[in-house]
Amino acid sequence: MKRRDFFKNGLLTSLGLGALGSIPVLTSAASSKKKAKNIIFLVSDGMSSGTLNIADILLRHKEGKASNWINLYEKNIVRRGLMDTSSASSLVTDSAAAGSAWGGGMRVRNGALNIGPNGEKPVPILQKFKSAGKSVGCVTTVQITHATPASFCVNNGSRNAMPVIAEDYLRLRFDVMMGGGAEFFSPEKRADNRDLFDAFQQTGFEVARNRAEMMKATGDKPLLAVFSEDGLPYAVDRVNNKEMSENIPSLAEMTSKAIEIMSKNPKGFVMQVEGGKVDWAAHGNDAAALLYDQLDFDDAVGVAMDFAMRDKETLVIITTDHGNSNPGLFYSSKANENLERLFETTASNQWVLNQINPGFSNSQVIDLFMEYQKTPLTQDEAQIILSAYKFNEEGLYNPQNLPFHPLASIQSKYTSIQWAGTNHSSDFVELAMFGPGSENLSGFMKNYELHNFMLTASKMDKDFLV
Amino acid sequence: MKRRDFFKNGLLTSLGLGALGSIPVLTSAASSKKKAKNIIFLVSDGMSSGTLNIADILLRHKEGKASNWINLYEKNIVRRGLMDTSSASSLVTDSAAAGSAWGGGMRVRNGALNIGPNGEKPVPILQKFKSAGKSVGCVTTVQITHATPASFCVNNGSRNAMPVIAEDYLRLRFDVMMGGGAEFFSPEKRADNRDLFDAFQQTGFEVARNRAEMMKATGDKPLLAVFSEDGLPYAVDRVNNKEMSENIPSLAEMTSKAIEIMSKNPKGFVMQVEGGKVDWAAHGNDAAALLYDQLDFDDAVGVAMDFAMRDKETLVIITTDHGNSNPGLFYSSKANENLERLFETTASNQWVLNQINPGFSNSQVIDLFMEYQKTPLTQDEAQIILSAYKFNEEGLYNPQNLPFHPLASIQSKYTSIQWAGTNHSSDFVELAMFGPGSENLSGFMKNYELHNFMLTASKMDKDFLV
Ligand SMILES: [Zn+2]
Ligand SMILES: [Zn+2]
Repeated sequence: MKRRDFFKNGLLTSLGLGALGSIPVLTSAASSKKKAKNIIFLVSDGMSSGTLNIADILLRHKEGKASNWINLYEKNIVRRGLMDTSSASSLVTDSAAAGSAWGGGMRVRNGALNIGPNGEKPVPILQKFKSAGKSVGCVTTVQITHATPASFCVNNGSRNAMPVIAEDYLRLRFDVMMGGGAEFFSPEKRADNRDLFDAFQQTGFEVARNRAEMMKATGDKPLLAVFSEDGLPYAVDRVNNKEMSENIPSLAEMTSKAIEIMSKNPKGFVMQVEGGKVDWAAHGNDAAALLYDQLDFDDAVGVAMDFAMRDKETLVIITTDHGNSNPGLFYSSKANENLERLFETTASNQWVLNQINPGFSNSQVIDLFMEYQKTPLTQDEAQIILSAYKFNEEGLYNPQNLPFHPLASIQSKYTSIQWAGTNHSSDFVELAMFGPGSENLSGFMKNYELHNFMLTASKMDKDFLV
Repeated sequence: MKRRDFFKNGLLTSLGLGALGSIPVLTSAASSKKKAKNIIFLVSDGMSSGTLNIADILLRHKEGKASNWINLYEKNIVRRGLMDTSSASSLVTDSAAAGSAWGGGMRVRNGALNIGPNGEKPVPILQKFKSAGKSVGCVTTVQITHATPASFCVNNGSRNAMPVIAEDYLRLRFDVMMGGGAEFFSPEKRADNRDLFDAFQQTGFEVARNRAEMMKATGDKPLLAVFSEDGLPYAVDRVNNKEMSENIPSLAEMTSKAIEIMSKNPKGFVMQVEGGKVDWAAHGNDAAALLYDQLDFDDAVGVAMDFAMRDKETLVIITTDHGNSNPGLFYSSKANENLERLFETTASNQWVLNQINPGFSNSQVIDLFMEYQKTPLTQDEAQIILSAYKFNEEGLYNPQNLPFHPLASIQSKYTSIQWAGTNHSSDFVELAMFGPGSENLSGFMKNYELHNFMLTASKMDKDFLV
């Protein structure tokens, strides 16, 4: 890698008194001589800065070690910037528009996948890299057809078109696609009853449906691995459940397998790794789910960095697409011991809330939270949670409509973690890079600039640039 | 300034597969040959990352230009790190403990000013620099005796001892002390009826009580400038009020005058600049107060950087002591237009709430918020605000106990700005540096490490190190 001046003394000297706004860009325009043969793009979806820092604090106090991400800062191994995440339609983006900015190089309206505000259809970045002969793929903890992976792969006016996106993947024949989302591949769940799993197999894909099958994949065929109906379980639930942890890999395991397969390509590879349920946990203000999924993502960062530090031809990008819920560990005389309660938490709020049935008493609710989260709810609090369930006529509740937010308000007292909302925010987000090309990272970038940035780092033909 | 390797290729190459945790510190241990003759330490007190980024977004959309702070990132003019802010007693610090970490080089308990958990009394950093012959001082928008400036100046078991701290300042004879806090200097307000303003004058200080008197100061004498009883008005209130803006300087004006005076010292100067009311506004969830005070602080950043870029011997440190309330601009179909409402806001929540009297009707409340904040409250919302006032027996309310938080909950609908709380958070915070010594900034630091960092950058005698 190349030496760089951080402070171009000569330039600054000649600038004198001018307003800061008029100072020219000091980043070296000269690009690195080294080429990024590979790119690993890691996204912790919907990660507010509080998510990163509370997860790091949790790990330091629980296990006495820093998170990989913060450790990379502490050791000055990566460069860092902030990134503006706004979309064509709003200062507050959704994952489709944010991913499309990277994937297609232009800002699109919230909800769109690489369809511009004037109908533009920029070629998605993995299609570009595939056409240059590289192996390409995505791994995620949500549906593999979900907005963030899809934004690197397809053009579609709506992120909701997941059944169609699954068919796109059949046609695109990318090398590795792993995550959840069987609901969009299996004949029982698809409206058209098409058996896409079978179609993938018939056309030469390796199709894996559990951890063991994934582990056996050799890369002789393109790999589609789908481990669950919708999203994968939260990490805190997976590791505390024997069956889940046997059947469902961690994000780090998926990342490791994807690298193993794709790094065989002498022309290199480009992949996206998404910690997609960090965003879901933030929407649900589900602290245990959020922090342990962030740490699960952080393990994947470790896998990517281990490879890149050996390989020396891999650009690693570590970031998020937008803030979500802006959590913080807040002041309280018990902040430290409250955080410690999360050390022993063995289930997400979602998992615990799903155990509660219409007939439960307050005391049964209290016992559940004590057992899985070491949280001593009061009778009144248990009652608030019970009465917040919305049961339908058959006495069943909608699992998508669990009382996440009434619970989170109550929990703040026990965890000292508080939330500013339940949706995305306009936060400028962390952007970290390592490897060839990273020397051109500016301290503040706009999300869509990363598209050309990746193509340039890989010395792709200029025709590919947006 | 000195060239640095960001990526020590040789070292990394030999590291192989080891866990990231075992990688040695790659920061160059060799210190810069250039010495920081001067240090300007700028603190936006209680600035969560949302505060920095919403203020930048506001300025870009309102005036078409970036904030100085973000512009320094964008142009790669400063180096950046994250900083852990915890105190000796909690993961969530207060300003006294956070300031003491910098000022005394050790973590102390919340509430203490440079008195360690075992009674240690580290010498405050401005005393060290003064003893080396440098000019030293503090400027702030809160009481000059408040925790953050005091943490660079004195030892005291309690930040509440502001009347004593004012006396300490008389004895310490620092070169420039400017801000609010007449309540701790004037005989009418002090419990001991001592006239400290007179005592400062009698012992050779220049004492300024308004903007014009401050502007006239030449630096022939040490300067005490105190512009208000407690904190200075919020910037949004000051600039929209003729009398206030005539009498009370901006933080940038104070910073500029302090630099003008202290830079005459051939041995250099060290000063702290605090945007102290950013923290107060965050506690009050007062969006207009928060964002315009952050931008007022940002103007002071511009003044400091203008000086430092000409001077070339000045280390500029720009940071905050802790997060507060973790604001975010949140998703809504009207997020953009809601943010624009703040462009035309001409008063803080505090100011508007202070205009409301016990006899007000809902409609009068609605008119006030429409006039000063372009916010069309409903009758019901006006009623909620009115009934949240706590009036005493004489029908008066406590101005410290205004209904800030009921108002903020209502306002979120109109501004899209939401808050995770009303107190400090454990956020890792932004830490930016420019000038000699900044090359040694690590990507992640602990707050107390900055003490020796500043002494080392200035090549102070090793005896001064903690
Ligand atoms: Zn989301
Ligand atoms: Zn505070």
